[in-house]
Amino acid sequence: MPVDGAQTRNLVPFVSVDDMMGIVNDIGVEEMLAGIAGYIEEDFLRWELFDKTPRIAAHSPVGVIELMPTSDGIDYAFKYVNGHPKNTREGLQTVTAFGVLADVGSGYPVLLSEMTILTALRTAAMSAVAARPLAPAGADTMAIIGNGAQAEFQALAFARLLGIRRFRLYDIDAAATRKCARNLAGRGVGIVECASAEEAVEGAQIVTTVTADKQYATILTDNMIGAGVHINAIGGDCPGKTELHRDILLRSDIFVEYPPQTRIEGEIQQLDPDHPVTELWRVLAGRAPGRTSDRQVTLFDSVGFAIEDFSALRYLRDQLDRTGRFENLDMIADPDDPRDLFGMILRAKGQG
Amino acid sequence: MPVDGAQTRNLVPFVSVDDMMGIVNDIGVEEMLAGIAGYIEEDFLRWELFDKTPRIAAHSPVGVIELMPTSDGIDYAFKYVNGHPKNTREGLQTVTAFGVLADVGSGYPVLLSEMTILTALRTAAMSAVAARPLAPAGADTMAIIGNGAQAEFQALAFARLLGIRRFRLYDIDAAATRKCARNLAGRGVGIVECASAEEAVEGAQIVTTVTADKQYATILTDNMIGAGVHINAIGGDCPGKTELHRDILLRSDIFVEYPPQTRIEGEIQQLDPDHPVTELWRVLAGRAPGRTSDRQVTLFDSVGFAIEDFSALRYLRDQLDRTGRFENLDMIADPDDPRDLFGMILRAKGQG
Repeated sequence: MPVDGAQTRNLVPFVSVDDMMGIVNDIGVEEMLAGIAGYIEEDFLRWELFDKTPRIAAHSPVGVIELMPTSDGIDYAFKYVNGHPKNTREGLQTVTAFGVLADVGSGYPVLLSEMTILTALRTAAMSAVAARPLAPAGADTMAIIGNGAQAEFQALAFARLLGIRRFRLYDIDAAATRKCARNLAGRGVGIVECASAEEAVEGAQIVTTVTADKQYATILTDNMIGAGVHINAIGGDCPGKTELHRDILLRSDIFVEYPPQTRIEGEIQQLDPDHPVTELWRVLAGRAPGRTSDRQVTLFDSVGFAIEDFSALRYLRDQLDRTGRFENLDMIADPDDPRDLFGMILRAKGQG
Repeated sequence: MPVDGAQTRNLVPFVSVDDMMGIVNDIGVEEMLAGIAGYIEEDFLRWELFDKTPRIAAHSPVGVIELMPTSDGIDYAFKYVNGHPKNTREGLQTVTAFGVLADVGSGYPVLLSEMTILTALRTAAMSAVAARPLAPAGADTMAIIGNGAQAEFQALAFARLLGIRRFRLYDIDAAATRKCARNLAGRGVGIVECASAEEAVEGAQIVTTVTADKQYATILTDNMIGAGVHINAIGGDCPGKTELHRDILLRSDIFVEYPPQTRIEGEIQQLDPDHPVTELWRVLAGRAPGRTSDRQVTLFDSVGFAIEDFSALRYLRDQLDRTGRFENLDMIADPDDPRDLFGMILRAKGQG
């Protein structure tokens, strides 16, 4: 199916949840994580080009609905994402997402996609991109504390992009750990199911926290983190939701996506607003150091930024022809004479 | 097709351009304009309940892409809309739009729709809603200056909602006027094709300006507007784009949708930032007077606000069952176990 050319611009390719699962399985999870990581790196290297705005949030007593737009001047993207912790009690997802990529030159949308799965992939790809310059050399073992929806994606991103061979899993719900271990079986990585967070971090050079706690929580206490560890903190991602004890933050070198957003949503909401942090894009661009010693504790305080969704949508757009997994939606009115929208409706009469 | 219930919440009804044309023809343009007007009035009467933010705009040298979100605490809506004047030279639309309605309680989207046609309908419905308390009593003749895509919708909204029986049409391009007259033939209204704007306004108690000029233009000069006229100014809707001579503004009582937006985008960008204006919702709610004398010149300086799109989407949602014109999109990932997104993908393997 053609996806460009003026004559078909009124049709917008749509990647459904089914299509997305097909794409992930066609390409392979690890390969797709690596592909998205490449696009994220590319976009972080031209960070200054992007329109960067904080999320536009509509809060209600039970949750939040957010729009996350960004643009590099050529492509434009936005993601719609909600957060409703009480949804699981009603058999619904806490977080759902979809997104649109558009052409800045014409303003026409060029892709509509589910983004619940795509966000899981980009979050894990982002963590691995950040860990490459921050994790200690020779790291081969990662603890994953919190074994929910994001855990397997994190494991496979770190296996593929950093060569991590052993994962030490812990969750307060042992069923989640078993689910995660089962899903990762047969993928060439060693899995250790642990009975406590303390056990999980033993011997791990990288510690990933990705719990779903909604309140200030202390998943990691100061004594659990030895010298040289890289912490990949995913779960603290909105005001009032953190995972790390403040003392860990105080002895870490902290790397973030976009400081104005991270200071509100990330672990560093616990710190003074002028506490020094390093923007990750500067490390990737060689403008700031990443890890500088094998004793240093590094922390990637990840909250998820619009540019990562932009990168993921850009990657997906570039896979459309290859996978053929999309349908075209008749989304853009296209009268032969732009001034005759009304006539177009009249002429449609009796055709429906 | 069921459109609610937790078991189908992952499916989002989508109204395509074809569906929308079918809906307009099923319901009838005039009836649909009246229906949307009713929803707009209802929402303007509870104006203070709404989250109101200015548009979120991404500007480029050739155009703009905007997101317009709003919420009343029960429903949430946003519209995506672009503006690219140079598009017509490439056989593309200057403005395209689509929108989403979502449930604030769960954060789930409940409707995705084309909004190029729907915006044309809501803009005309809004004009008529504003004109009811502002136009002079007994008005039966309206001039329409600018006979492009919006003109017929304006005419039919004023015919249906204010009982206007004669329309005096003028456009710098006589072909646009002929197109408009042809489209309005047989709808029980009198049409006069005029050779100038001066001729068009003769005997008209309401003057609608809806030209597509991109620069400061003077479609109406001061001498063209007599005492008692209501001006419905649609075309001045972005910075640098106005239609009325400043002197007309200075002797009019000016009514606007949302002052922070209108002062940037509307005719009143020509005036001091503290020039008095009346919020239309206050007139509709009986908190401020509309027209108070038959000599008064009233001006509705319309730019289009997010709440009107919200009303239009709400109206459309309520017609879905009645018209059946939509398809369900598999847009929201819905794993049986929310923590097992990865397992859902694995299990889909071989099913695609």
